Amino acid sequence: MAEDRTGQVAVMFVSERTGDDPHGYSAAADAMDALAAQQPGYRGIDSVSAGGLGITLSYWADEASAVAWRHHPEHAATREAGRGRWYKWYRLHVADIRRSYSWMRE
Amino acid sequence: MAEDRTGQVAVMFVSERTGDDPHGYSAAADAMDALAAQQPGYRGIDSVSAGGLGITLSYWADEASAVAWRHHPEHAATREAGRGRWYKWYRLHVADIRRSYSWMRE
Repeated sequence: MAEDRTGQVAVMFVSERTGDDPHGYSAAADAMDALAAQQPGYRGIDSVSAGGLGITLSYWADEASAVAWRHHPEHAATREAGRGRWYKWYRLHVADIRRSYSWMRE
Repeated sequence: MAEDRTGQVAVMFVSERTGDDPHGYSAAADAMDALAAQQPGYRGIDSVSAGGLGITLSYWADEASAVAWRHHPEHAATREAGRGRWYKWYRLHVADIRRSYSWMRE
Protein backbone atom coordinates (compact mmCIF):
# COMPACT_ATOMS: atom_id res chain seq x y z
CA MET A 1 0.00 0.00 0.00
CA ALA A 2 2.60 2.53 1.06
CA GLU A 3 4.97 1.46 -1.67
CA ASP A 4 7.50 3.99 -2.87
CA ARG A 5 7.70 3.72 -6.65
CA THR A 6 10.56 6.16 -7.15
CA GLY A 7 12.72 4.89 -10.02
CA GLN A 8 10.03 2.66 -11.48
CA VAL A 9 8.55 3.10 -14.96
CA ALA A 10 4.80 3.80 -15.17
CA VAL A 11 2.70 2.99 -18.22
CA MET A 12 -0.48 5.10 -18.21
CA PHE A 13 -3.22 3.70 -20.40
CA VAL A 14 -6.27 5.94 -20.85
CA SER A 15 -9.07 4.56 -23.00
CA GLU A 16 -12.67 4.74 -24.08
CA ARG A 17 -14.36 1.48 -24.90
CA THR A 18 -16.88 0.81 -27.63
CA GLY A 19 -18.97 -1.46 -25.45
CA ASP A 20 -18.87 -4.14 -28.15
CA ASP A 21 -17.92 -7.71 -27.26
CA PRO A 22 -17.92 -7.19 -23.48
CA HIS A 23 -17.32 -10.86 -22.69
CA GLY A 24 -14.42 -11.12 -25.10
CA TYR A 25 -12.97 -7.96 -23.68
CA SER A 26 -13.28 -9.09 -20.06
CA ALA A 27 -11.73 -12.47 -20.78
CA ALA A 28 -8.83 -10.87 -22.63
CA ALA A 29 -8.32 -8.21 -19.95
CA ASP A 30 -8.22 -10.82 -17.19
CA ALA A 31 -5.81 -12.98 -19.18
CA MET A 32 -3.53 -10.02 -19.90
CA ASP A 33 -3.54 -8.91 -16.25
CA ALA A 34 -2.52 -12.40 -15.18
CA LEU A 35 0.14 -12.66 -17.87
CA ALA A 36 1.57 -9.21 -17.06
CA ALA A 37 1.93 -10.18 -13.41
CA GLN A 38 4.20 -13.07 -14.43
CA GLN A 39 6.63 -10.91 -16.38
CA PRO A 40 10.10 -10.04 -15.11
CA GLY A 41 10.14 -6.54 -13.71
CA TYR A 42 6.39 -6.34 -13.10
CA ARG A 43 5.74 -4.15 -10.04
CA GLY A 44 1.96 -3.86 -9.90
CA ILE A 45 -1.12 -2.31 -11.42
CA ASP A 46 -3.83 0.22 -10.55
CA SER A 47 -6.96 0.29 -12.67
CA VAL A 48 -10.34 2.03 -12.58
CA SER A 49 -13.06 2.08 -15.22
CA ALA A 50 -16.51 3.61 -15.34
CA GLY A 51 -18.96 4.36 -18.11
CA GLY A 52 -16.61 3.12 -20.82
CA LEU A 53 -13.69 5.28 -19.71
CA GLY A 54 -10.73 3.56 -18.15
CA ILE A 55 -7.35 4.39 -16.68
CA THR A 56 -4.85 1.61 -16.03
CA LEU A 57 -1.44 2.29 -14.54
CA SER A 58 1.08 -0.52 -14.75
CA TYR A 59 4.41 -0.25 -12.97
CA TRP A 60 7.68 -1.77 -14.09
CA ALA A 61 11.15 -2.10 -12.61
CA ASP A 62 12.73 -0.36 -15.57
CA GLU A 63 12.33 0.68 -19.17
CA ALA A 64 13.47 -2.69 -20.49
CA SER A 65 10.78 -4.64 -18.66
CA ALA A 66 8.07 -2.20 -19.78
CA VAL A 67 9.19 -2.53 -23.40
CA ALA A 68 9.45 -6.33 -23.13
CA TRP A 69 5.83 -6.49 -21.97
CA ARG A 70 4.76 -4.32 -24.87
CA HIS A 71 6.45 -6.74 -27.27
CA HIS A 72 5.35 -9.94 -25.54
CA PRO A 73 3.91 -12.05 -28.38
CA GLU A 74 0.65 -12.93 -26.64
CA HIS A 75 0.13 -9.35 -25.52
CA ALA A 76 0.86 -7.96 -28.97
CA ALA A 77 -1.45 -10.50 -30.63
CA THR A 78 -4.31 -9.72 -28.24
CA ARG A 79 -3.85 -6.01 -28.77
CA GLU A 80 -3.85 -6.34 -32.54
CA ALA A 81 -6.84 -8.66 -32.57
CA GLY A 82 -8.95 -6.68 -30.14
CA ARG A 83 -8.30 -3.02 -30.27
CA GLY A 84 -10.53 -2.17 -33.23
CA ARG A 85 -13.39 -4.04 -31.60
CA TRP A 86 -12.97 -2.90 -27.99
CA TYR A 87 -11.74 0.66 -28.11
CA LYS A 88 -12.90 3.92 -29.58
CA TRP A 89 -9.51 5.38 -28.74
CA TYR A 90 -6.70 5.06 -26.32
CA ARG A 91 -3.68 7.05 -25.27
CA LEU A 92 -0.61 5.67 -23.63
CA HIS A 93 2.15 7.53 -21.82
CA VAL A 94 5.36 5.95 -20.55
CA ALA A 95 7.05 7.82 -17.72
CA ASP A 96 9.89 7.63 -15.22
CA ILE A 97 8.67 8.05 -11.66
CA ARG A 98 10.81 10.60 -9.90
CA ARG A 99 9.03 10.57 -6.54
CA SER A 100 6.15 8.93 -4.69
CA TYR A 101 4.06 9.93 -1.70
CA SER A 102 1.41 8.03 0.12
CA TRP A 103 -1.01 8.85 2.86
CA MET A 104 -3.31 6.68 4.91
CA ARG A 105 -6.00 7.57 7.39
CA GLU A 106 -5.03 6.75 10.95
CA MET B 1 -7.18 13.79 -28.26
CA ALA B 2 -4.05 12.69 -30.09
CA GLU B 3 -1.83 14.87 -27.98
CA ASP B 4 1.78 13.85 -27.59
CA ARG B 5 2.77 14.40 -23.98
CA THR B 6 6.45 13.59 -24.36
CA GLY B 7 8.43 15.86 -22.05
CA GLN B 8 5.47 16.71 -19.82
CA VAL B 9 5.27 15.84 -16.12
CA ALA B 10 2.44 13.53 -15.03
CA VAL B 11 1.04 13.49 -11.51
CA MET B 12 -0.73 10.17 -10.85
CA PHE B 13 -3.18 10.31 -7.96
CA VAL B 14 -4.65 6.96 -6.92
CA SER B 15 -7.14 7.05 -4.06
CA GLU B 16 -9.87 5.31 -2.13
CA ARG B 17 -12.59 7.50 -0.73
CA THR B 18 -14.38 7.11 2.58
CA GLY B 19 -17.74 8.03 1.11
CA ASP B 20 -18.22 10.64 3.87
CA ASP B 21 -19.24 14.17 2.98
CA PRO B 22 -19.93 13.50 -0.71
CA HIS B 23 -21.28 16.98 -1.40
CA GLY B 24 -18.34 18.70 0.25
CA TYR B 25 -16.00 16.43 -1.69
CA SER B 26 -17.69 17.11 -5.04
CA ALA B 27 -17.70 20.84 -4.53
CA ALA B 28 -14.04 20.86 -3.55
CA ALA B 29 -13.06 18.55 -6.43
CA ASP B 30 -14.84 20.75 -8.96
CA ALA B 31 -13.27 23.89 -7.51
CA MET B 32 -9.80 22.32 -7.56
CA ASP B 33 -10.20 21.12 -11.16
CA ALA B 34 -11.19 24.63 -12.23
CA LEU B 35 -8.35 26.22 -10.26
CA ALA B 36 -5.77 23.76 -11.62
CA ALA B 37 -6.80 24.57 -15.18
CA GLN B 38 -5.91 28.22 -14.58
CA GLN B 39 -2.37 27.52 -13.41
CA PRO B 40 0.67 28.25 -15.57
CA GLY B 41 1.95 25.06 -17.14
CA TYR B 42 -1.33 23.14 -16.81
CA ARG B 43 -1.64 20.72 -19.73
CA GLY B 44 -4.78 18.73 -18.95
CA ILE B 45 -6.34 16.05 -16.82
CA ASP B 46 -7.73 12.53 -17.14
CA SER B 47 -9.85 11.18 -14.31
CA VAL B 48 -11.96 8.08 -13.66
CA SER B 49 -13.61 6.97 -10.44
CA ALA B 50 -15.84 4.05 -9.57
CA GLY B 51 -16.89 2.44 -6.34
CA GLY B 52 -14.79 4.77 -4.21
CA LEU B 53 -11.58 4.11 -6.13
CA GLY B 54 -10.22 6.89 -8.29
CA ILE B 55 -7.31 7.60 -10.58
CA THR B 56 -6.60 11.15 -11.67
CA LEU B 57 -3.74 12.02 -14.00
CA SER B 58 -2.81 15.67 -14.25
CA TYR B 59 -0.28 16.82 -16.80
CA TRP B 60 2.11 19.75 -16.45
CA ALA B 61 4.55 21.50 -18.71
CA ASP B 62 7.42 20.85 -16.35
CA GLU B 63 8.45 19.98 -12.84
CA ALA B 64 8.24 23.58 -11.63
CA SER B 65 4.59 23.98 -12.62
CA ALA B 66 3.65 20.64 -11.01
CA VAL B 67 5.35 21.66 -7.77
CA ALA B 68 3.79 25.13 -7.88
CA TRP B 69 0.33 23.56 -8.08
CA ARG B 70 1.12 21.32 -5.14
CA HIS B 71 2.07 24.40 -3.10
CA HIS B 72 -0.76 26.63 -4.30
CA PRO B 73 -2.25 28.03 -1.05
CA GLU B 74 -5.86 27.21 -1.88
CA HIS B 75 -4.97 23.74 -3.07
CA ALA B 76 -2.85 23.04 0.01
CA ALA B 77 -5.57 24.36 2.34
CA THR B 78 -8.26 22.23 0.69
CA ARG B 79 -6.04 19.17 0.86
CA GLU B 80 -5.27 19.68 4.53
CA ALA B 81 -8.87 20.39 5.43
CA GLY B 82 -10.38 17.53 3.49
CA ARG B 83 -8.14 14.57 3.23
CA GLY B 84 -8.91 12.99 6.60
CA ARG B 85 -12.61 13.24 5.84
CA TRP B 86 -12.65 12.21 2.19
CA TYR B 87 -9.94 9.61 1.78
CA LYS B 88 -9.08 6.25 3.27
CA TRP B 89 -5.73 6.45 1.56
CA TYR B 90 -4.06 7.87 -1.47
CA ARG B 91 -0.85 7.41 -3.36
CA LEU B 92 0.76 9.94 -5.62
CA HIS B 93 3.52 9.43 -8.16
CA VAL B 94 5.22 12.21 -10.10
CA ALA B 95 6.83 11.15 -13.36
CA ASP B 96 8.54 12.45 -16.46
CA ILE B 97 6.80 11.31 -19.64
CA ARG B 98 9.35 9.91 -22.02
CA ARG B 99 6.99 8.92 -24.82
CA SER B 100 3.32 8.93 -25.80
CA TYR B 101 1.24 6.94 -28.24
CA SER B 102 -2.34 7.31 -29.22
CA TRP B 103 -4.71 5.32 -31.32
CA MET B 104 -8.18 6.08 -32.59
CA ARG B 105 -10.68 3.92 -34.41
CA GLU B 106 -11.10 4.90 -38.01
